[in-house]
Amino acid sequence: MQLVVIGGVAAGMSAAARARRLDPNLQIIVLERGTQVSWAACGLPFYLSGRVGKLEDLILHTPEYFERERNIRVRTGAEVTAIQPARRQVVLRGGERLSYDRLVIAIGARPGRSIPGADLPHVFTLHCLEDGRRIREFIEQRRPRCAAVIGGGYIGLEAADALAERGLPVTLFEAGPDVLGRQDRELTTRISRHLASHGVELRLNTPVGEIRPEAVAGVSAELVILALGVQPNVELALEAGVELGPTGAIRVNERMETNLAGVYAAGDCAETTHLVTGSPVYLPLGTTANKMGRVAGANAAGGREKFAGVVGTMIIALRGLAVGVTGLSLAQARKEGFDPVAARIEAPDRSRYLGSRPTTVELVADRRSGRLLGGSVMGERGVAGRINVIAAALTAGLPLEQFAQLDLAYTPPLAPVWDPLLAAAQQLRKALT
Amino acid sequence: MQLVVIGGVAAGMSAAARARRLDPNLQIIVLERGTQVSWAACGLPFYLSGRVGKLEDLILHTPEYFERERNIRVRTGAEVTAIQPARRQVVLRGGERLSYDRLVIAIGARPGRSIPGADLPHVFTLHCLEDGRRIREFIEQRRPRCAAVIGGGYIGLEAADALAERGLPVTLFEAGPDVLGRQDRELTTRISRHLASHGVELRLNTPVGEIRPEAVAGVSAELVILALGVQPNVELALEAGVELGPTGAIRVNERMETNLAGVYAAGDCAETTHLVTGSPVYLPLGTTANKMGRVAGANAAGGREKFAGVVGTMIIALRGLAVGVTGLSLAQARKEGFDPVAARIEAPDRSRYLGSRPTTVELVADRRSGRLLGGSVMGERGVAGRINVIAAALTAGLPLEQFAQLDLAYTPPLAPVWDPLLAAAQQLRKALT
Repeated sequence: MQLVVIGGVAAGMSAAARARRLDPNLQIIVLERGTQVSWAACGLPFYLSGRVGKLEDLILHTPEYFERERNIRVRTGAEVTAIQPARRQVVLRGGERLSYDRLVIAIGARPGRSIPGADLPHVFTLHCLEDGRRIREFIEQRRPRCAAVIGGGYIGLEAADALAERGLPVTLFEAGPDVLGRQDRELTTRISRHLASHGVELRLNTPVGEIRPEAVAGVSAELVILALGVQPNVELALEAGVELGPTGAIRVNERMETNLAGVYAAGDCAETTHLVTGSPVYLPLGTTANKMGRVAGANAAGGREKFAGVVGTMIIALRGLAVGVTGLSLAQARKEGFDPVAARIEAPDRSRYLGSRPTTVELVADRRSGRLLGGSVMGERGVAGRINVIAAALTAGLPLEQFAQLDLAYTPPLAPVWDPLLAAAQQLRKALT
Repeated sequence: MQLVVIGGVAAGMSAAARARRLDPNLQIIVLERGTQVSWAACGLPFYLSGRVGKLEDLILHTPEYFERERNIRVRTGAEVTAIQPARRQVVLRGGERLSYDRLVIAIGARPGRSIPGADLPHVFTLHCLEDGRRIREFIEQRRPRCAAVIGGGYIGLEAADALAERGLPVTLFEAGPDVLGRQDRELTTRISRHLASHGVELRLNTPVGEIRPEAVAGVSAELVILALGVQPNVELALEAGVELGPTGAIRVNERMETNLAGVYAAGDCAETTHLVTGSPVYLPLGTTANKMGRVAGANAAGGREKFAGVVGTMIIALRGLAVGVTGLSLAQARKEGFDPVAARIEAPDRSRYLGSRPTTVELVADRRSGRLLGGSVMGERGVAGRINVIAAALTAGLPLEQFAQLDLAYTPPLAPVWDPLLAAAQQLRKALT
């Protein structure tokens, strides 16, 4: 039995490693068109800022490690140009063919570049290790005096903050009225203010029609990072007869099976289910890719595992402010047909007499069912923990009533007697009645 | 209509404040036998250590505040000696009688002192503001050179660390083999090691038979803190015909009603329900007291609120280590008749390349049902957030399968791609199958 995995980053290497764990005798080969596998894309902004010293620090394991320690064959520089399901073969650039019994497609996504001027030498995306290397080389050799980032998603925000941390004045352009795609004006305002105090000017409602050699939308920029979101790599799969879902990414079931027998997909090329709406969603993130990959690998090796989906948790770490979101924002919930109500509070993150800082929590619930639908948390500390509590509650379908009385930890140096989560929930209960 | 609240700390003042919010016209009077109301008992260890400068910092609101801002009458130095339900009256020391339509009993608990020598002048409990004042005065005036703490519960642990923070060598005596009442040897070992490196020697299996003027169990101690746990104050209620539950604390239903019409109880004098076992439990903590008080006050004012119970969440903050527990430990789960399996892992609390520290997570699940039963988290950072995620999952009755794939936040500076919670859950899945 041979398992072929196309793509050697988060989903692909998770699949290969998990398959190996379940079946010591399976032949496993990973085909990666780049030069490295198993690296941490989400660390790139922190390489830009200088907090990660060497690009190699972002490489979690080398191909040699997988060969030696896991008995997984890894071929880098191996680009698959076709999948032939009838023959159970993949074709590599150069014509070589490889047979598979099981196939995991983990070919990721690619960054959007659809702006005139995107090919200018001072314009970069921030998607792979090579991008990171090129940007830092450009900064160190060309010493740009000002930068622009285009796109107010999580990569754009973290990249803008990272460039500002290096001392570059940064303008961050967002075509729409909001960042992070939440249609949440207050969240945007708070982030905008914070960025401004850290050297990043956020320009909302400013679509960029063209990048010029030294300016973007009339603002000087000697370095430009495109952060326009990503598109799933689906062409290879589509040509082989793999079905796409309504989001345009590869459709998989809970076992990560595509419509083709023995063919799985996982990671940024595939869609998943949003557990709050129950609908397919395309939310390409490293954590999800790892989970999907794990399940694809387990099932490809004869296991029976499932991945039910996500609730849309995301966090960004700016200097001095973390912002976490999960589930649906008020606007998103309305679009999904709920009758949502939201409450937002600012509350101390521990007992005041031990040096509290304000944390902002917003919760959204459905008026009809009393079910919690989503939330956001902003603050200096404890943001990951608090957004994760909301994520757990969403996964469990916890009613707001129960959420408002959660038995959360309290000790004055670490958390206040009424956690901001509970304070927000109490506020939302009032709004619901 | 007159609402009388007996006791003016966490549960009592929460009840009064909540009742006022629901009914602006209700007469509300709080009877507190001490001199202050609404103070933060859980802050006392941090007053001892010196991190809280003034005892007054622990007073959240003064009686004058409640009178002026909330229209709640507060009488301090007012000790109730009897409740006469037939007449709907309470009797104060001195003979004065007060009528009530609704009564909230929030008379708290008292610290155990049942060791010969407990009345010596260098022996203290750490239960009320006056205790804090007396201990700090004793330290500043008498300059003890060594201290003992008796009892390895959360107060004993935090008090021992606080005294050590002031530079006193501390011996902490625990009669049983474990701290924090979890019957968890590994947790105890880890805490013991940490304490040792911070100037506290933990002596397990060392019941203290007697406190002598300068020594405890043969160890020099010029200052002794008794942390033997607390007993609910129930005598006043019992004499009035209020029923106790199996834990020996006042029995209440979800609405905080006692068996007497119009009489509610809340806080450290009452028991509640453990949501994992479904059984009555006595777990006197500030957070729970506030929640119970709120519900008692709401219902006393004509509302219809419920408090379902707790999952047993507790956290302690030592210097450089926080320890959180929730639900049942393995030993506790076994005693409750479950068929529990546990897994404990140590994992980095964020991406390694951004300076991770180890976090230890233990999860306990039931083999038969696959249900999560409890857990503990130990580490330097992020402990409150992680224990709260487990607490939320326990409240929702989340199966381990779902817990293991929770959509938790990931960004390298704040959380790793596989959160320690998920790593522990994956480990436990293996142990379950």
